[in-house]
Amino acid sequence: MNDSKTNPGNFFENFKFDQELIHPTPRTITAGDVAIYQALFGPRFAVHSDREFARAIGLPDSPIDDLLAFHVVFGKTVPEISLNAIANLGYADGHFGTPVYVGDTITAVSRVIGLKENSDHKSGVVYVRSTGLNQHDEMVVDYVRWVMIRKKSEEPSCTTPLLPNLPKSVPASALIFPYQLRMSGYDLSLAGNHYLWDDYAIGEKIDHVDGMTVEEAEHQMATRLYQNTAKVHFNLHEQLQGRFKRRLIYGGHIISLARALSFNGLSNAFRIVAINGGTHANPTFAGDTIYCWSEVLDKLVIPRRDDIGALRIRTVAVKNKPCGDFPDKGEDGKYHSQVVLDFDYTILMPRMAKRL
Amino acid sequence: MNDSKTNPGNFFENFKFDQELIHPTPRTITAGDVAIYQALFGPRFAVHSDREFARAIGLPDSPIDDLLAFHVVFGKTVPEISLNAIANLGYADGHFGTPVYVGDTITAVSRVIGLKENSDHKSGVVYVRSTGLNQHDEMVVDYVRWVMIRKKSEEPSCTTPLLPNLPKSVPASALIFPYQLRMSGYDLSLAGNHYLWDDYAIGEKIDHVDGMTVEEAEHQMATRLYQNTAKVHFNLHEQLQGRFKRRLIYGGHIISLARALSFNGLSNAFRIVAINGGTHANPTFAGDTIYCWSEVLDKLVIPRRDDIGALRIRTVAVKNKPCGDFPDKGEDGKYHSQVVLDFDYTILMPRMAKRL
Amino acid sequence: MNDSKTNPGNFFENFKFDQELIHPTPRTITAGDVAIYQALFGPRFAVHSDREFARAIGLPDSPIDDLLAFHVVFGKTVPEISLNAIANLGYADGHFGTPVYVGDTITAVSRVIGLKENSDHKSGVVYVRSTGLNQHDEMVVDYVRWVMIRKKSEEPSCTTPLLPNLPKSVPASALIFPYQLRMSGYDLSLAGNHYLWDDYAIGEKIDHVDGMTVEEAEHQMATRLYQNTAKVHFNLHEQLQGRFKRRLIYGGHIISLARALSFNGLSNAFRIVAINGGTHANPTFAGDTIYCWSEVLDKLVIPRRDDIGALRIRTVAVKNKPCGDFPDKGEDGKYHSQVVLDFDYTILMPRMAKRL
Repeated sequence: MNDSKTNPGNFFENFKFDQELIHPTPRTITAGDVAIYQALFGPRFAVHSDREFARAIGLPDSPIDDLLAFHVVFGKTVPEISLNAIANLGYADGHFGTPVYVGDTITAVSRVIGLKENSDHKSGVVYVRSTGLNQHDEMVVDYVRWVMIRKKSEEPSCTTPLLPNLPKSVPASALIFPYQLRMSGYDLSLAGNHYLWDDYAIGEKIDHVDGMTVEEAEHQMATRLYQNTAKVHFNLHEQLQGRFKRRLIYGGHIISLARALSFNGLSNAFRIVAINGGTHANPTFAGDTIYCWSEVLDKLVIPRRDDIGALRIRTVAVKNKPCGDFPDKGEDGKYHSQVVLDFDYTILMPRMAKRL
Repeated sequence: MNDSKTNPGNFFENFKFDQELIHPTPRTITAGDVAIYQALFGPRFAVHSDREFARAIGLPDSPIDDLLAFHVVFGKTVPEISLNAIANLGYADGHFGTPVYVGDTITAVSRVIGLKENSDHKSGVVYVRSTGLNQHDEMVVDYVRWVMIRKKSEEPSCTTPLLPNLPKSVPASALIFPYQLRMSGYDLSLAGNHYLWDDYAIGEKIDHVDGMTVEEAEHQMATRLYQNTAKVHFNLHEQLQGRFKRRLIYGGHIISLARALSFNGLSNAFRIVAINGGTHANPTFAGDTIYCWSEVLDKLVIPRRDDIGALRIRTVAVKNKPCGDFPDKGEDGKYHSQVVLDFDYTILMPRMAKRL
Repeated sequence: MNDSKTNPGNFFENFKFDQELIHPTPRTITAGDVAIYQALFGPRFAVHSDREFARAIGLPDSPIDDLLAFHVVFGKTVPEISLNAIANLGYADGHFGTPVYVGDTITAVSRVIGLKENSDHKSGVVYVRSTGLNQHDEMVVDYVRWVMIRKKSEEPSCTTPLLPNLPKSVPASALIFPYQLRMSGYDLSLAGNHYLWDDYAIGEKIDHVDGMTVEEAEHQMATRLYQNTAKVHFNLHEQLQGRFKRRLIYGGHIISLARALSFNGLSNAFRIVAINGGTHANPTFAGDTIYCWSEVLDKLVIPRRDDIGALRIRTVAVKNKPCGDFPDKGEDGKYHSQVVLDFDYTILMPRMAKRL
């Protein structure tokens, strides 16, 4: 009997500063992946739905949803990074690079950029930069996350603490998008509403109105589609013996739901270009209904482009509660108990559009 | 704070006679959409499943299921037509035109063809003709539906009542299909049974025998695939406060299930060419098992074609009750309480086939 | 009224020795089918996930999962073979031939190779060899199964018992795989672990550790995707009147789950080449969590190939019980009550790989 051939995952002691991890099982993206994503979240941004729309704004085809690319890369990193994770602590400095098209093959690599053992010597925090590359070795998505990971032993590991220097948000100068993008072909009647970059104000809040209930089959299908192997999402038998007595929904599922719901109010936010930060404030379970609202945190002018601008947005997802009153953190800095996600990201929006 | 950027939907007062509405978010149909449709309904008509079969009868490739095209167009119309609907009252004069193939992009437009305010001034009926067009501006599906829609105010709106003149059924002369269709290549051993057009008689009833149970994840995935945004299908939290205490299944889901089940008895009904009418007699919920039966209402000879004929069919779907006794309307004209759908449509069937 | 147009299925008396059955509704495989399979089972074998990986080992593209091809062929056989089945008794002598690629069209045919009436004259056992062919008439999968089937009448049928001669396992000389396969391009860092054929020993057991819970929507979607029409999987209303009071999960669903879970321990088992036998030991229902373990039954040297070997594997799937103690048959020859599958098959594994 021998089961050493199975993957035990990495413990805190296994990570070394500047170590590179190549994640197995690259993934060729297909029209099937895109359709399942559509069926699970129901997004309505025209650029992903309508090939002709995408071509009219200068792209060769409809790119896949930015978050689908993110989830595929994130999923690949789980077996080597977070199989022994206690908690996913944060995201920062995320960039979306070359758009992903059907037929592209995505490989994921991670580099350890920070390490800090906890004072109880039972766990430590690992900072990694994970990068998704297409078959031409172009970056498609790249982000930092930090995770609290179990130690194999409770002996002090003598790791020198090294913390990365992370930006609070990605600056306009670091935003990447295809230079071919041209908003003169952006058709507002097909995009769904006429509010452009200049119509949004810093501090403005939008209640996205609609709610979406999640089923077990749905989040399991999503997470398997991304080849994410985190056990808590799939194994009811084991979860019944745990704290929540049920399967936990992948935090990224809520990000995708919130993004799809945000179409109602941010219809022209056609591309995510950066992830500035994110907190999974409370767990979500099957049967929960997700609502969300957004706040415009900043307006970024894109150098040398007067046809397109960026908005730094914070989208807050809330379970089983409509968002007309914008549920948020209390005065004590703690989130309302029904807030499940606080996601800080940057999107592109046209400043002009096709004249009809 | 400002949430006017979200779509409030149109109220009765917003509709004007002859008004055209361009529906946002066109949709490029992919092999992924087709596979999800397959996984949700299990259809077995060879023309949609087998590219070689489709080519043998003169088509360039397998067209997508006719009802998938219908649902995509219907889904697009929801945000502008029926977000404030109280009830979907009927369908008429539906035509299927150019078949839809993977890679086609469908855009939907609607025209207001009738308006009638209700006497209580709280709502009114709006008649629209909705049309799905492919990227060559060819009609792929076109149908009339009428919907009862809330009014914004209870003041009389002074709308002159205007009702469209709708045919009871689409006549043979108005049926459209690709002229390349040739039944000499139709292989009965691959199609599943040998009953051809001439084997069916007006008045004949067929119990389709099989039943299919619907799950929440399934109807939600279907409806999001079509980008149908009707709130009642997705939001358990809100529905718990409503009349049914649960999510309502999209009526079109039942049409698709019934069509797939009808293969057992109508295996050679390989193409829907018209929708003559339809009633969603009772609501369906997750956990319900759908059975169905059909009646041949009419046999239509196609001008100048002796190889192909059309049958006007009425398919009645029933929940949680097998259809050996053909549950229907009672003497009082009311439907049996388990009847959920009464769908009147026209299909094509070969009158001759490949000689083996 | 006439419902003879529906398929009553074949009864024992309808089968004749050496009879050939052509199964209706061939199936063109698409990227959508592959993605749904991915979403339902979460496999991580690189060859199916990464087109570039597949090309590096000499294939033209990623083939579809071997079991997806098997299920599609199996599904086609249900309407003619097992609609009136009492039990699926066994599998033997299964071969996988030409890999299936997206765009291929699969047709299924079966030949009756054995018949034996039961002594009570109420049923009999039918042995069929079912074969899946692609559009070039190349065999893609071919296997024997035997099924106990109801008789139409209880009169003795006078069938002469004829039993096929079936091998206990498929010998190395009968294994088929594309001659272009070359392991010099097999990248272990992308495949997930470095254990090759020579690292496995006969008798070695591996606990695959992970568990996966099945939902109703999932197994229904899978089975409809394969166009498998067995009523027990879909019809809750009817099942409520039966022995189990719920829908039964298709046995093949468990085979696919076990195969996907076995990646953790058998990561380089990149191709199934034979099915030697299989037993569905107990039924599985929605809500059950599937774990599994494997045993290496034999190591097969492939003639004239030193870069690749085959392992005969037995994978045992168990519900609601981790497999650290390898649950199996007891001393009485009976399976542990939570064992649901005992599957005996042969896989290919590299004996050398790409040098980095």
